[in-house]
Amino acid sequence: RTHSIAVLPGDGIGPEVTAAALAVLDAAQERFGFTTERTDVPLGADHYLSTGELLPDATVEELRGHDAILFGAIGSPTVTPGILERGIILALRRQMEQAINLRPVRLYDGVPTPIAGLTPERCDMVIVRENTEGAYVAQGSTVHAGTSAQVAVQESVNTWYAVERAVDFAFRLASVRRKKLTLCHKTNVLVEAGKLWTRAMEEVGARYPDVETDYVHVDAMCMHLPVNPERFDVVVTDNLFGDIVTDLGAVVQGGLGVAASGNLNIAGTGTSMFEPIHGSAPDIAGRGWANPAGACLSLSMMLGHLGEGEAAAAVEAAAAAVVAQLPALAGAEMGATTEELGRRIADLVRDG
Amino acid sequence: RTHSIAVLPGDGIGPEVTAAALAVLDAAQERFGFTTERTDVPLGADHYLSTGELLPDATVEELRGHDAILFGAIGSPTVTPGILERGIILALRRQMEQAINLRPVRLYDGVPTPIAGLTPERCDMVIVRENTEGAYVAQGSTVHAGTSAQVAVQESVNTWYAVERAVDFAFRLASVRRKKLTLCHKTNVLVEAGKLWTRAMEEVGARYPDVETDYVHVDAMCMHLPVNPERFDVVVTDNLFGDIVTDLGAVVQGGLGVAASGNLNIAGTGTSMFEPIHGSAPDIAGRGWANPAGACLSLSMMLGHLGEGEAAAAVEAAAAAVVAQLPALAGAEMGATTEELGRRIADLVRDG
Ligand SMILES: CC(C)[C@H](C(=O)O)[C@@H](O)C(=O)O
Ligand SMILES: CC(C)[C@H](C(=O)O)[C@@H](O)C(=O)O
Repeated sequence: RTHSIAVLPGDGIGPEVTAAALAVLDAAQERFGFTTERTDVPLGADHYLSTGELLPDATVEELRGHDAILFGAIGSPTVTPGILERGIILALRRQMEQAINLRPVRLYDGVPTPIAGLTPERCDMVIVRENTEGAYVAQGSTVHAGTSAQVAVQESVNTWYAVERAVDFAFRLASVRRKKLTLCHKTNVLVEAGKLWTRAMEEVGARYPDVETDYVHVDAMCMHLPVNPERFDVVVTDNLFGDIVTDLGAVVQGGLGVAASGNLNIAGTGTSMFEPIHGSAPDIAGRGWANPAGACLSLSMMLGHLGEGEAAAAVEAAAAAVVAQLPALAGAEMGATTEELGRRIADLVRDG
Repeated sequence: RTHSIAVLPGDGIGPEVTAAALAVLDAAQERFGFTTERTDVPLGADHYLSTGELLPDATVEELRGHDAILFGAIGSPTVTPGILERGIILALRRQMEQAINLRPVRLYDGVPTPIAGLTPERCDMVIVRENTEGAYVAQGSTVHAGTSAQVAVQESVNTWYAVERAVDFAFRLASVRRKKLTLCHKTNVLVEAGKLWTRAMEEVGARYPDVETDYVHVDAMCMHLPVNPERFDVVVTDNLFGDIVTDLGAVVQGGLGVAASGNLNIAGTGTSMFEPIHGSAPDIAGRGWANPAGACLSLSMMLGHLGEGEAAAAVEAAAAAVVAQLPALAGAEMGATTEELGRRIADLVRDG
């Protein structure tokens, strides 16, 4: 079996953690007997500053030709904030129709969490974030800029097309997990969008009679997630609320070091992309201080997506085991470099 | 000195915690030598169900005639979600021009927090939430409802008028605290609104040269708030982000039991309102299981607003002392009823 993978290391610590993940991928290939063809795709701050290109059409076409994209991190203090995020990350999500941002929030055994008394059994949920619209349509308008009459209107656009598919995906996922799906929204204030999401929960839910449904306001979610994570199995939410609650989820599961995500095209019309949820962390780039676990857990998600289920499980277990031994999630106190940690994870994968 | 107060106990546990707070107010009056005239205002689910009225104009006029409003909680399972919230709470905020929602996030000595290792010195911030607009304009539109073409658009309207006044208020507050103001937004995605908020930070900031400013994305804020609360002194944010991060703040400071808020009219054009941030909790109503500390801390904020600074400090200290002795923040395990706890807080205030 062979899979073609586009590797998009990006900026800052992106290339470091991606290199570590690729060493782990080598080990997984050896052990589980598959191969990959890898194409390096140079996107990010350096590419933008030297060429003026953010996401050229030709690159999008090239990415389309691959089975998956392994993404490092993008962002740099040398570029005005927002340019790279919107021009590359959000553009990729939209152009590749990566309808779902999938964020497992799982506390691995031995990984320190800042939540007092929290145990791994109590924290195992998946957040399904709609990934293409809502407040992220990035439209909006300003009138009377610079005067005391300035008004900025920002729109959130919510379509049945995208909401129904996100909710259906979430129900499907819940039906093979603990069979509970929670909608997280703010229906008491965002009434029109709320009606659309609620309708999707009801209509799609009729197709999944064995999945129990539940609702929580996003503000209440931020109260429950840290202290009652066991309340959640699968959570479905919109793009903006998803952005917020998944980062809170990362705190609960022990920090950015262990948080991974998949940007999934579920229609076969584009390529799915897997990324650690940490950023490019320019302050620690080049020092070998970045924890590669997030990248390796993203690799695990990618392997699952490619149908390499055994390899996915082995990589996840190895990454979790190595993180559990670290005194710190990143930085000099980690006690080993990014590369060494990648090697340790790779060794565990290779040795089974 | 006398102050006229409108008392709006509301639904569920609202009347219980409000009664406890009023006993504490009695004690504060005795000790500090001021009086209050109190008018009970019947708003909430019962009033709505029996009269069909949410917030009659006459009630708004009556509230206007008072120096402050002491609010319990509103909400009932007998009313469709959203009706009371929008029809009373949000309507009051808007009609009374309560421009600011002020939420101190302070960990009191001895109050258990779910954040491992967090100490009171590290957690003392105030969140200033814009309280009248943004996504809370509650407008929006739906086309093609009930079909596969349904689209819901939700608008967030942001005006210089309201953003500038919120930012100015926040700077003023920061200048009498630790002189640090953080803007919490999502400027990399909500570009137009982000420009307005950023402009306000810059222009208003020029008037407060001794206040250091800082920026954090709302998703990153949810990572930092639990584990690095010392990073924040005053935080200013929009209505929707404020709704979310203040609830997370409540978790960090030990839960809803100890979280209070003020809805402030800062122009003298309406009456300010003080409310615990817990809801009406219909599941425990009538049992005496509600913790009155949130209501008492709201009373303390109200007293500060009325110029009764000494009384405010005494009530805050007494409420914090009593909460620190409780094994649980609400429920049967609290070991004392709402009324008894109110009496204990009142006694501490009376005895000094
Ligand atoms: C970089 C940014 C645009 C992005 C988002 O807001 O979606 C990030 O926070 C994420 O969650 O992947
Ligand atoms: C009840 C609800 C409308 C309200 C809000 O969203 O503002 C509440 O959550 C709050 O924070 O006071």
